[in-house]
Amino acid sequence: MNNLLKENERIDQLYSNDIKVIQNPEVFSFSLDAVLLSYFAKLPKKDSSVTVDLCSGNGAVGLFMSHKTRGKIWEIELQPRLADMAKRSVELNNLENKIEVVNDDLDNATNYISKDSVDVITCNPPYFPNLDNSKKNPNKYLAIARHEITTNLDKINIVCSDLLKTNGKVFFVYRPDRLLELLDSMKSHDIMPKVIQFIHPRKQKDANMVLIEGIKSGKNGGTKVLPPITVYQDESNDYTDYVRNVLYGK
Amino acid sequence: MNNLLKENERIDQLYSNDIKVIQNPEVFSFSLDAVLLSYFAKLPKKDSSVTVDLCSGNGAVGLFMSHKTRGKIWEIELQPRLADMAKRSVELNNLENKIEVVNDDLDNATNYISKDSVDVITCNPPYFPNLDNSKKNPNKYLAIARHEITTNLDKINIVCSDLLKTNGKVFFVYRPDRLLELLDSMKSHDIMPKVIQFIHPRKQKDANMVLIEGIKSGKNGGTKVLPPITVYQDESNDYTDYVRNVLYGK
Repeated sequence: MNNLLKENERIDQLYSNDIKVIQNPEVFSFSLDAVLLSYFAKLPKKDSSVTVDLCSGNGAVGLFMSHKTRGKIWEIELQPRLADMAKRSVELNNLENKIEVVNDDLDNATNYISKDSVDVITCNPPYFPNLDNSKKNPNKYLAIARHEITTNLDKINIVCSDLLKTNGKVFFVYRPDRLLELLDSMKSHDIMPKVIQFIHPRKQKDANMVLIEGIKSGKNGGTKVLPPITVYQDESNDYTDYVRNVLYGK
Repeated sequence: MNNLLKENERIDQLYSNDIKVIQNPEVFSFSLDAVLLSYFAKLPKKDSSVTVDLCSGNGAVGLFMSHKTRGKIWEIELQPRLADMAKRSVELNNLENKIEVVNDDLDNATNYISKDSVDVITCNPPYFPNLDNSKKNPNKYLAIARHEITTNLDKINIVCSDLLKTNGKVFFVYRPDRLLELLDSMKSHDIMPKVIQFIHPRKQKDANMVLIEGIKSGKNGGTKVLPPITVYQDESNDYTDYVRNVLYGK
């Protein structure tokens, strides 16, 4: 197993579904948002289904939801070093028959996957606008993963709209402070937000993450706002039962 | 006091701020949404401030928030019978010097109140689209209060935008299933949603109300999602401490 790992890499495990992920804190590490997104996403079970994870980083989201479908999962990641980590994590979990990692710009997704053919897309987009260099992370890998340098919400939603079947679904994890921009971008590319769930670090704190499910060519109205997720218990640094279950299983 | 009340009317009290409201269940009664809206709204204290409650019904929201300001509060209500109840409730609480009830269509608000002069607007709009008659409440008073028969979100936001000063605030209570329509309508009339708070009947249930604060000519981004409000305690019909405080005070 040792030749799977490159310098500064380690293997982390998501115990709730027994998945191992190659991580490198200097380049990219999955965090709770990836775990919650993969838990939130609903995948069709059937063999013929097609799921795509955009901005897949080291592949954590696709790996974490791989048990939810017998169909194919594509992971599309622009950065070669991250896509390489994702490929090795797929091998590490013996999921080469199910998950295919594509190292390319998501704008080129239709070179690999037919238009209007995808059942489900998941995406954990870069959260921060492309500010001037002084405010960005000096680490190039992290800067691209977190800032809208190589992509942005509109580019992502154009790709989602291109790839998805009518009534296909997209699942996003994002930050509440840009909620309106995400909702607008989805709608302007024919993806109707339908289900929203907020994540609060503690019961009495403002939300710091939001999960959104949208449907291609869905009609307006009927928005559901699910019970919120709270991450930590009051007055302790212990996870709530919900998050402990997501991370470690029952 | 008896000649204050007409047939089928009764006086209900909001104990948390000692306000009495004339109610008539056949015509209009305030409910928890009005109480939570008045609690959510932030009013400038100063004497010269101007607050307007649109779609004010029997005047509950304006009455409930009257202790928050030394300034003037206008209540605008289209239905004569409801506006009449509101006027008598204002007298009942000796608030004639602070609250003025206008019985008119909100489209005519600028006949009474100067454009760009208002600090704060509150509104509990009709929640339901104007469906065909078969699906509406056969009671005319309740149908108008609950369905978009005489007004709708765009009309309301046009009036809000007309009345508010730059950076003036509007506070809405609404239903989550039409959240996207409300956000769109606000934005298309130069009112930027800034703070959102969801209300869940119980901790594990979807939200059934939403409170939204918007700012006239505010810029996009920085949306805050406050900790949710839960109405009832788990496995009982007792109010949570939060709601008990809003209704009855500490």
